[in-house]
Amino acid sequence: MNVVVWNENRHEKSNPMVAEIYPNGIHGAIAEFLEEDQIHVKTATLDEEDHGLTDELLNETDVLIWWGHKAHDEVKDDIVEKVHKRVLEGMGLIALHSAHFSKIFKKLMGTTCDLKWREADETERLWVVDPSHPITEGIGEYIELEKEEMYGEHFDIPAPDQLIFMSWFEGGEVFRSGSTYQRGKGKIFYFRPGHETYPTYYNKEIQRVIKNGVKWVNNVNTPAPVYGNAKPLEEITKKQVKQ
Amino acid sequence: MNVVVWNENRHEKSNPMVAEIYPNGIHGAIAEFLEEDQIHVKTATLDEEDHGLTDELLNETDVLIWWGHKAHDEVKDDIVEKVHKRVLEGMGLIALHSAHFSKIFKKLMGTTCDLKWREADETERLWVVDPSHPITEGIGEYIELEKEEMYGEHFDIPAPDQLIFMSWFEGGEVFRSGSTYQRGKGKIFYFRPGHETYPTYYNKEIQRVIKNGVKWVNNVNTPAPVYGNAKPLEEITKKQVKQ
Amino acid sequence: MNVVVWNENRHEKSNPMVAEIYPNGIHGAIAEFLEEDQIHVKTATLDEEDHGLTDELLNETDVLIWWGHKAHDEVKDDIVEKVHKRVLEGMGLIALHSAHFSKIFKKLMGTTCDLKWREADETERLWVVDPSHPITEGIGEYIELEKEEMYGEHFDIPAPDQLIFMSWFEGGEVFRSGSTYQRGKGKIFYFRPGHETYPTYYNKEIQRVIKNGVKWVNNVNTPAPVYGNAKPLEEITKKQVKQ
Amino acid sequence: MNVVVWNENRHEKSNPMVAEIYPNGIHGAIAEFLEEDQIHVKTATLDEEDHGLTDELLNETDVLIWWGHKAHDEVKDDIVEKVHKRVLEGMGLIALHSAHFSKIFKKLMGTTCDLKWREADETERLWVVDPSHPITEGIGEYIELEKEEMYGEHFDIPAPDQLIFMSWFEGGEVFRSGSTYQRGKGKIFYFRPGHETYPTYYNKEIQRVIKNGVKWVNNVNTPAPVYGNAKPLEEITKKQVKQ
Repeated sequence: MNVVVWNENRHEKSNPMVAEIYPNGIHGAIAEFLEEDQIHVKTATLDEEDHGLTDELLNETDVLIWWGHKAHDEVKDDIVEKVHKRVLEGMGLIALHSAHFSKIFKKLMGTTCDLKWREADETERLWVVDPSHPITEGIGEYIELEKEEMYGEHFDIPAPDQLIFMSWFEGGEVFRSGSTYQRGKGKIFYFRPGHETYPTYYNKEIQRVIKNGVKWVNNVNTPAPVYGNAKPLEEITKKQVKQ
Repeated sequence: MNVVVWNENRHEKSNPMVAEIYPNGIHGAIAEFLEEDQIHVKTATLDEEDHGLTDELLNETDVLIWWGHKAHDEVKDDIVEKVHKRVLEGMGLIALHSAHFSKIFKKLMGTTCDLKWREADETERLWVVDPSHPITEGIGEYIELEKEEMYGEHFDIPAPDQLIFMSWFEGGEVFRSGSTYQRGKGKIFYFRPGHETYPTYYNKEIQRVIKNGVKWVNNVNTPAPVYGNAKPLEEITKKQVKQ
Repeated sequence: MNVVVWNENRHEKSNPMVAEIYPNGIHGAIAEFLEEDQIHVKTATLDEEDHGLTDELLNETDVLIWWGHKAHDEVKDDIVEKVHKRVLEGMGLIALHSAHFSKIFKKLMGTTCDLKWREADETERLWVVDPSHPITEGIGEYIELEKEEMYGEHFDIPAPDQLIFMSWFEGGEVFRSGSTYQRGKGKIFYFRPGHETYPTYYNKEIQRVIKNGVKWVNNVNTPAPVYGNAKPLEEITKKQVKQ
Repeated sequence: MNVVVWNENRHEKSNPMVAEIYPNGIHGAIAEFLEEDQIHVKTATLDEEDHGLTDELLNETDVLIWWGHKAHDEVKDDIVEKVHKRVLEGMGLIALHSAHFSKIFKKLMGTTCDLKWREADETERLWVVDPSHPITEGIGEYIELEKEEMYGEHFDIPAPDQLIFMSWFEGGEVFRSGSTYQRGKGKIFYFRPGHETYPTYYNKEIQRVIKNGVKWVNNVNTPAPVYGNAKPLEEITKKQVKQ
């Protein structure tokens, strides 16, 4: 399985606080804990040529993890089209946190993906609402994060195929913070936590969910649909009789 | 309730067979049967200025019905954006038949919306799989159409929120031919039948389904979500204690 | 439309605090506000013969509202069977609050319907997560109840067909507090609020949701499926050719 | 992973034609092809004590496959209760063909699970409608069975969480023939084919789907929900301030 962690990697350069928390970038931190499980991981970032997402790389990628925030608009439309095509062909996608507003996520959802937000160092508690889902393997009834950014409903997404986590926030809001979608042959997992100013991606339970997510979105060898004009599989003869 | 029936209205001009079946256009035929129920209906077509979809009209439209086929690409992107915005704001949308490939439907779905097809004068039988759904009111276990174009799976759409009809085709295929989606405040109904060379929209059961669909997608006065930065509804005080 | 409000009506008899809040019983309070909308309402209670649910009444009932709590086990199994049959035939069902543990709701869900709970006079805030749903008509982004019993996840229900409300509780939990299901021809709405020691059913927004729910679960004249051995609709002749 | 294949095993004893096709019983045939994949399989049948489903066996079973048809009523209710409890605790369940009418499947669904049927040696074609689903791994666009019993809609089940296969039948019907459900911690897969008088379980594609299903319903180490009275996770202090 080939995993690519894509990161905007801008906060890390402009905000010393973020750079201190994630000295190797958010992509670096995510790649590190995935590699613990002998997963083959590459990283790519916005400021590389083609944002690091060459055709060669995309074609061999099984799972793409996406983190972006303040430069969504700088992601080139042709790259978004290529990623979109690959998802429909079966490449798994994990959209993390502020990737809710990324071009690729919005294109796959068909909605604005807008939400409420607040930075107030408040507690988030992610409750498991589907304990049958493999993405919850190895974690407890809930994950508690002492300080996170708040994302609140209404979250303008299609009704998820599967709703796995619902967040409680200290300031009074709730949020559908773990949800899955199917698009074409591709599987998509949106997972809310991970504001750049908190060390969320070092949390072992959050890491476990992302690892589980990588396994879950990875889609091996399912059927390739055929589209377009199709010959009949059965004789169409009765109509003459009826006439 | 204000309903607008939008039609490409090109086959009617170029193909005498279609013109004979639908002398007032497909939009005219649909408007006629809706008006039987005292529904206020307007029509709009591709070749009008702004495709007949002015801001004024769109803003007062509760339900938009869309039929298009061979000129999807001629629909201007800015009009698609406006229709998309109105759907998210709560305008109901009914996409008929080949509107599966319309820009607006594809944008709302996030997928290619591709499928198999064949024109072979074959029987279609639409089976009701959700007899609790108001869209099935007044019809029987299935609707049989003696001759229709075939649409076959795989249909590249997100898993429908509600699957209402499944079609059987004489040539050996099946199709999810009646399905609903929610996007923002808007409700969407996709309904398969209605190839331009068949008199499908004169079928009383098909008319009944579309009438039911109009009622079902019409969304009255549901909450307007507020997005963006949000003040807390509860005091966020505990964090200082914890530190 | 004929609506029946069924209530256990035991707390009202044994707990003076409840009797003071609901002098005509919870069923009486619910019937009263429904009647404001010219809905035809009857009530039935546990201690009546057949719990007030005669065959005649059930057969003419379009929507049944159910409130029960401490005497679920006293509801006779044959009455539960009759209600179950009527739901599958198309009678709408609204299960309120502690009716999550009623025999009829558990039978329709197929799960334990267990949950977390706490009586601590805490704030509940019901957030709308599906602003396209008619059950949310006329209310705001959320409904706030100053004091309610807490119900917390995990709520052991099947994934709802539609999730409409998610509750935030002051003590740190969340809950899927408004959800819908389809079973046979019947539509079901579960709505969480309404602990007997709080005046929740006098809240205008809660009343609005229940009124909307009544309209939504009411199912008029959808198809009656035919089951059992079925003659073919098409000739089955090809097999001989193949052999 | 421990798999148990449960079979009624009555047709095999009373119908020589079935005995000839399945000399080791349907359970034997299924166990055989699962063992090709180094899966640890046991079998159990109706006429054994406790139908072969002892507490010890159930407690160590990860996945239970169920085939029954003419003796559903002979399955003891207490055994059904035990199987139900184990499913909610996380044991995967695959219900095959006529198990749609088994006590355990009906209890988990909450509906009659009724359908249309016909034995007429007709062609079934199972179309993949969700090519992102791991249960479709390794198969083509559709599976064709030359002769099978027909099952037709309406199939009285709750709307599936995931619909994977839709069947076309020569005689004119369609059927939701591969669907999944979640109940508690348990995952459920219903798969239609497998009438006792046809050699369906020797079909390599059908075997592949069942093998994929076994992997998919197997649920490892997801969270164990805690139910009942719960202490608050946050201080509930504000109410006094408000009063």
